[in-house]
Amino acid sequence: MNAPVTVSIVGASGYAGGELLRLLLAHPHATIAQATSERLFGRSVTKAHPNLRKKTTLAFTRLGDLEPCDLLFTCLPHGDTMEHMPRFRDLAPRVIDLSADFRLNDPAAYERWYGRPHTHPEWLGEFVYGIPELHRTEMKDARYVSSAGCNATATILGLYPLFRAGVARPDATVVEVKVGSSEGGNRSTDASHHPERAGCVRSFMPVRHRHAAEMIQELGFGREIEIHFSATSIEMVRGVLATAHVFLEKPLAEKDIWKIYRGAYGTEPFVRIVKERDSLYRYPEPKLVAGTNHCDVGFELDADSGRLVVMSAIDNLMKGAAGQALQAFNLMHGFDETTGLEFAGLHP
Amino acid sequence: MNAPVTVSIVGASGYAGGELLRLLLAHPHATIAQATSERLFGRSVTKAHPNLRKKTTLAFTRLGDLEPCDLLFTCLPHGDTMEHMPRFRDLAPRVIDLSADFRLNDPAAYERWYGRPHTHPEWLGEFVYGIPELHRTEMKDARYVSSAGCNATATILGLYPLFRAGVARPDATVVEVKVGSSEGGNRSTDASHHPERAGCVRSFMPVRHRHAAEMIQELGFGREIEIHFSATSIEMVRGVLATAHVFLEKPLAEKDIWKIYRGAYGTEPFVRIVKERDSLYRYPEPKLVAGTNHCDVGFELDADSGRLVVMSAIDNLMKGAAGQALQAFNLMHGFDETTGLEFAGLHP
Amino acid sequence: MNAPVTVSIVGASGYAGGELLRLLLAHPHATIAQATSERLFGRSVTKAHPNLRKKTTLAFTRLGDLEPCDLLFTCLPHGDTMEHMPRFRDLAPRVIDLSADFRLNDPAAYERWYGRPHTHPEWLGEFVYGIPELHRTEMKDARYVSSAGCNATATILGLYPLFRAGVARPDATVVEVKVGSSEGGNRSTDASHHPERAGCVRSFMPVRHRHAAEMIQELGFGREIEIHFSATSIEMVRGVLATAHVFLEKPLAEKDIWKIYRGAYGTEPFVRIVKERDSLYRYPEPKLVAGTNHCDVGFELDADSGRLVVMSAIDNLMKGAAGQALQAFNLMHGFDETTGLEFAGLHP
Amino acid sequence: MNAPVTVSIVGASGYAGGELLRLLLAHPHATIAQATSERLFGRSVTKAHPNLRKKTTLAFTRLGDLEPCDLLFTCLPHGDTMEHMPRFRDLAPRVIDLSADFRLNDPAAYERWYGRPHTHPEWLGEFVYGIPELHRTEMKDARYVSSAGCNATATILGLYPLFRAGVARPDATVVEVKVGSSEGGNRSTDASHHPERAGCVRSFMPVRHRHAAEMIQELGFGREIEIHFSATSIEMVRGVLATAHVFLEKPLAEKDIWKIYRGAYGTEPFVRIVKERDSLYRYPEPKLVAGTNHCDVGFELDADSGRLVVMSAIDNLMKGAAGQALQAFNLMHGFDETTGLEFAGLHP
Repeated sequence: MNAPVTVSIVGASGYAGGELLRLLLAHPHATIAQATSERLFGRSVTKAHPNLRKKTTLAFTRLGDLEPCDLLFTCLPHGDTMEHMPRFRDLAPRVIDLSADFRLNDPAAYERWYGRPHTHPEWLGEFVYGIPELHRTEMKDARYVSSAGCNATATILGLYPLFRAGVARPDATVVEVKVGSSEGGNRSTDASHHPERAGCVRSFMPVRHRHAAEMIQELGFGREIEIHFSATSIEMVRGVLATAHVFLEKPLAEKDIWKIYRGAYGTEPFVRIVKERDSLYRYPEPKLVAGTNHCDVGFELDADSGRLVVMSAIDNLMKGAAGQALQAFNLMHGFDETTGLEFAGLHP
Repeated sequence: MNAPVTVSIVGASGYAGGELLRLLLAHPHATIAQATSERLFGRSVTKAHPNLRKKTTLAFTRLGDLEPCDLLFTCLPHGDTMEHMPRFRDLAPRVIDLSADFRLNDPAAYERWYGRPHTHPEWLGEFVYGIPELHRTEMKDARYVSSAGCNATATILGLYPLFRAGVARPDATVVEVKVGSSEGGNRSTDASHHPERAGCVRSFMPVRHRHAAEMIQELGFGREIEIHFSATSIEMVRGVLATAHVFLEKPLAEKDIWKIYRGAYGTEPFVRIVKERDSLYRYPEPKLVAGTNHCDVGFELDADSGRLVVMSAIDNLMKGAAGQALQAFNLMHGFDETTGLEFAGLHP
Repeated sequence: MNAPVTVSIVGASGYAGGELLRLLLAHPHATIAQATSERLFGRSVTKAHPNLRKKTTLAFTRLGDLEPCDLLFTCLPHGDTMEHMPRFRDLAPRVIDLSADFRLNDPAAYERWYGRPHTHPEWLGEFVYGIPELHRTEMKDARYVSSAGCNATATILGLYPLFRAGVARPDATVVEVKVGSSEGGNRSTDASHHPERAGCVRSFMPVRHRHAAEMIQELGFGREIEIHFSATSIEMVRGVLATAHVFLEKPLAEKDIWKIYRGAYGTEPFVRIVKERDSLYRYPEPKLVAGTNHCDVGFELDADSGRLVVMSAIDNLMKGAAGQALQAFNLMHGFDETTGLEFAGLHP
Repeated sequence: MNAPVTVSIVGASGYAGGELLRLLLAHPHATIAQATSERLFGRSVTKAHPNLRKKTTLAFTRLGDLEPCDLLFTCLPHGDTMEHMPRFRDLAPRVIDLSADFRLNDPAAYERWYGRPHTHPEWLGEFVYGIPELHRTEMKDARYVSSAGCNATATILGLYPLFRAGVARPDATVVEVKVGSSEGGNRSTDASHHPERAGCVRSFMPVRHRHAAEMIQELGFGREIEIHFSATSIEMVRGVLATAHVFLEKPLAEKDIWKIYRGAYGTEPFVRIVKERDSLYRYPEPKLVAGTNHCDVGFELDADSGRLVVMSAIDNLMKGAAGQALQAFNLMHGFDETTGLEFAGLHP
C-alpha cells in the first residue's frame, strides 16, 4: 500500500467543504492535512459541520497558513479563486477547484456570461471539466480539474447521450431545474429566512443562469446549440431535478432511446437509468440520491409531438460538487472510482 | 334584498367540496341546502372538513336524497358526472360542474384525450368553460358552467394574453407545472403515503396530461397550436406554479409585454401582475395565494433567444376549483364578482 | 353607523404588523391611518407584506411622523416599547401593545424574568392582560391592553379551566410547546437560514422561557404555582401546539373534565373543544387554525397515573398576536367580538 | 478471515427491513441469503427499496421458503412474530427480533400493556433487551436479542445515566417524543395521506403508549418508577427527539450532571453528548443523525425548580431499529461494534 494522499481543503466551512471533509475522513487512501476558514479560524471543523462530531478533531486554519500538500480542493467563492490560483498551484501539484472560475474553456464565453474578463485566461485550457462520465480519460492524467456546476451536472448528464448521438434539435431544448436551498450556500439572507423560504416555489433565475454556458460548451459536439434554461427553488434542502424537454430531429421509438442511454451509461458506476412502470419511484427522484454520488436519469417520450422529456436527479452537494470532486480525485490517483462514494442513500 | 340562492353540493366530502362549503357558509347571498357524500352519509360535514367545526351543523346526505335547488355544484369524479347529469339538470336550473366531463367543447377531442366516447356529446356545447377572465360575458347568462382544470387554469391565465395577441409561436410553448399533493384528491394511495410523498420531486405526468386539451382549446384563437405540457409534484399541499416557456414570433421589448398583460388583466379583480426588482417575492408564488382566488402572473424575457418565461400561481383548490366556481356563481347571479372571495391570503 | 375608528400601527413591517394590516383592511369599522417602519419608510406596505398586493396603496411612514389617532397598535421589539410609551399615550387615547413590556403586573416579576428593572413600573397596573377569555369584562372599559405572548396564550387557554377549578396540582405541571419559525420574527439569522432551520426539531428554550412568567401570573388564582415550561421549534412556519401534562389533585372522570372545559368555554366564540374518537384530527392541530383566531383545546386522561394531557393549538400570529389584539379592539369599542375574525381556516 | 455470517431477513419489505438490507449489503462480514415478503414475492428488493437500485439483484422470497442460516433478522408485525418464533428458532441458531413481542421480560407486564397473554411466555427470559449500551455483556453471548422500540430507545438512552445514578425522582418524569411519519410503517392509511399528514403536529398517543413499558423495565433499577409518556407526530419522515423532564431528588450542579453522563457514555461509540453554547445545533437534533446509528444526548438544568430537561435524538429506523440490530449483530459475532455503521450523517 502506498502512502496516503495528503489533501487540504480551502474554504472548508461551506457546505461543499463540509461534504468533502465527511467523504475524505472516511476515504482509505486520503489524509486531510488542513481545512481553511477565515471566519472560524481556530475552531473545530465540527462547529460548521456538526454531523462530524466525534469523527474528527481537526480545527480550521487560515488561508495564509496553508502548507504544501499533494492535492488541494478549493471551494472559495466564484471570482476569488482565480486570484488565489497562482499560490494554489505553487502549493500543490494537483488542484480540484469547485468554484465556477475555471469551468469554461473559452475566455470570451467567460466574459460573456460572467460580465468581466478572466484574470488568468491562459489557464482555462489546463483545467479538465469535472464530469467524469464525459472526461474520464483526460482526468486520469490531469493536474487541474474544475468541478462542474450542480445544475449543469444534472442537465448535462441527462442530455449528453442525446446530443452526442445527434438526435436532439440543436436550438429547441428547454430545461427547468427544481433545486433546494443549499444551492445558495451557507450564508443567511433575507431570502433564505425560514418563514420566507419555507414552502416556496421561487422562480429565482428564469433566464440567463450562468450554468447554461457550461451546458452549451459540453453538449455542442461541434454544433451551435442553445439550451433554454430556467431554475426554480422549491421546498427541499439538498437536490436537483432537471426536467429537459428535447425535441427530436426525427422520430425515434422508445427502444431507440433506451439504446442511446444504455450505450452511454451501461457501465457507469454512478449513473442509473430509472424508468419503471409500476413503482412509486418511476422516474429519477432527488431524495433517493441525497448523500450519494448517483445521478439517476429517466425519460418519457411523447411520440405524437416528438418531445422527449428527460429527467435527471442528483444531490447538488455530492454529484453536483463534493462527490464529483472525489470521483475525479479517485481517477487522478488511480483509485477505484467508487472509493469513499459507496453510500446507497436513504429510503424513506 | 332578494331571497338567498339555494345551493347544494354533490360530492361534498372531497377537497373542492370542502372549499365550496367554507366559501358558501360565509357568502351573504347563498344558503346551502344539501351536501352529499355516500361514504359519510349522516355524519357532520366537519368530519371531512374539520376546519368548519363550530361554523356549521350541516350533515352529509346521500346523492339519492337530493332535492331541487337553485344551483347545483357537482364535484363527482371524472366520468361519473356525465352519467348523473340528466338528473342534475332536472333538479336545478343551473349547474356548475367541477369535474372534467364538460370542459371540452368537441366530442372528438374528448374521445382523443379521455380514451372513450362522451355519453352526452350533445350537451358539451351548452357548458361555458369556467374561467371568468376568458368567458365572463357568456357566463352572465349561462345555465351550465364547467370549471376548468387546475393546471389548465394556471397555464391558460399565464398564456392567454400572449396567444390572444398572437405574439407566441403556435407550436413551441413548453409548460411545466409544479403542483401540491392536494391535486390528487382526498383518497390515500401508496403514492400519497407521507414517508413516500414527503420531500418528493415526482415527475408524475411528463407527457399526455389531459389538461393540455383544455389549453389547446382555449388558446388556439383559430390557429392550430401545441402546448408541450409536463406536471411535477413537489413538497406542497396546495398550489400550482406554472412555468411556461414561450418563444416569440418576433422580437418584443419588455414594455411591449407589460402592455399586453396590462391590457388583458388591468381591471381583473383576481389577476395580479407580479414582477418586481427588489422583493423577496419578485415573481408569482403559490404560497401567497393559498386560500385565495388570486392568480398571480409574472414574466421574464430573454431577449437574446426570444424566449419569454411566464410564471403563474394559483391555489388549485380555489382559483383552480372552488374559488373559480364561486366566481362563476357570482357572475351568473349578478352579484359582485368578488363576493365571498375577499380573503387576502397569508404571509408568512 | 358611527364614524370608523382610526387606527395606526407602529412597527408594521413585522409579521404581527402584517397580520394587523390584513385584518384591519377588511374590518368594517376601522380605518388605518398610518403604518410605521423605519427600514421601509416611504415604500408600499406590500413590500413587506406581498399578500396585500392589490388590497391597499398604503405606504410606510416613520415613527416620528405619527399623528394622533383613536387607537394605536404597537408592535415594537420588547424593551423599545416602554421607552416610547409616553408619546404613544399622548398620541392616542387607547393603545394595544403587542410587545412583552406591559404583560406582567408586578414590577418585581418583570425584573426577575427580564433581567432589568422596568422603566415605567407605574403603568404596569394600567394594562389589561390581553386574553379576552380571561379578561373580557375589564377589556370593555380598558384604555390599555397588553397582548399576551403567543406561547403563553396557547398554554394559558389550555390550562385556565383546570387551574380556575383548582383541580391541578400547583407545582407539577409540565408544558412543552412546539412552535413554528415565524415566532422568531422577520429578521434573518444564521439559525433561521433555510438549510439549517428546515426539518429541525430544535430545543431552543428548554428552561427559563419568559412566557412562563405570564402563565404563573394568570393561572395562580391566589396559589403559589409552578409551570415547568419548554419550547421546541419544529418544521412549521405558523402555529403553536402546547402539550401540557397536568397532575390532578384527586381522581376525576373524563366527564368531570368535559364539564370543566364546557363550563369555561361553552360560549366562547373562538375556543373549540376538540376531542374526537374517529377523526383524522382527534385533537387540536395548529395547521387547522392557521390564519384564524381560534384556539382549539383538547385533552386525554390517564386515569391510572392521574395525568391529564391537555393540548391546545393556536396560530401564533393570530390568536397569539394580531387576532387576539383585534378581538380586544372589538371589545374595547363594543363591536361584535368576531368582527373581522371570521376566517374559518383551510383544510387541507 | 472466517467465512461470512449468512443472514436472512424476515419481513424485509418494510422500512426497517430496507435499512437492514442497505446495511448488510455493505457489511464486510455478512452475506444476505434471503429476504422475505409475501406481498412482493418474486420481485426485486429494489421494488420496495429503490435506493438499493444497482446495489443488489436480490429478489424477495416467501416466508415459507426460508432456509436455514446463521442468523435471522425478524421484522414481522407485532403479534405475528411470536407465532412464528418456534420455526425461526429451528431455522437459525441466532435471532434478532425487531418486533415488540419479546421486549418485556415479564409475561404479566406484556399482558397488561398489550391486552392479551403472551403465547410463549417461557421464551421472554431468553431474549436480551436490545440496547447495547445497557446490555453489551449479555449480548456477546446471546442467541436471542429483541431490539428495543424506537421511542423507548431514545428515551431510555436519555434517562439511563440519571436513573442508574439514582438522582431522578422515581415517579415524576414526563417525556414527550416528537416523531416522524416513518414510525407508522410503510402501509398507507387515511391518516398518512400526504395532504392530511403534511405539516401536522399530531398528538397521536398522549397517554398509554406501549413503549412506556420498556422504559419502566429498563430504568427501574429495583425501584418502582413511573414514566409519564406522550408521543406527537410532526413534519418529519425519519427521526425521534425525546424531551424528558426529570425532577432531581436533590440539587445538583451542571458539572455533576456532566459527570454522570460522561461516566455513562464517555467511551460509547454511538452516543454523543451534545450541549454547546454557541452552535446552531446546541442540543441533539434528529436531522443530524438521520441514516446513522448515533444517539445524541443533551441536557439543560433549571436549578431553581430542580428540573433537568434531557433531550435525545435518534433515527427511528437506525438506532431505533436496524442500526441497533446490526450493532447487536456485531457484538454477538465479535466484530468491531461499529462495522457497517460508520456513516456520519448529512449536514445540511
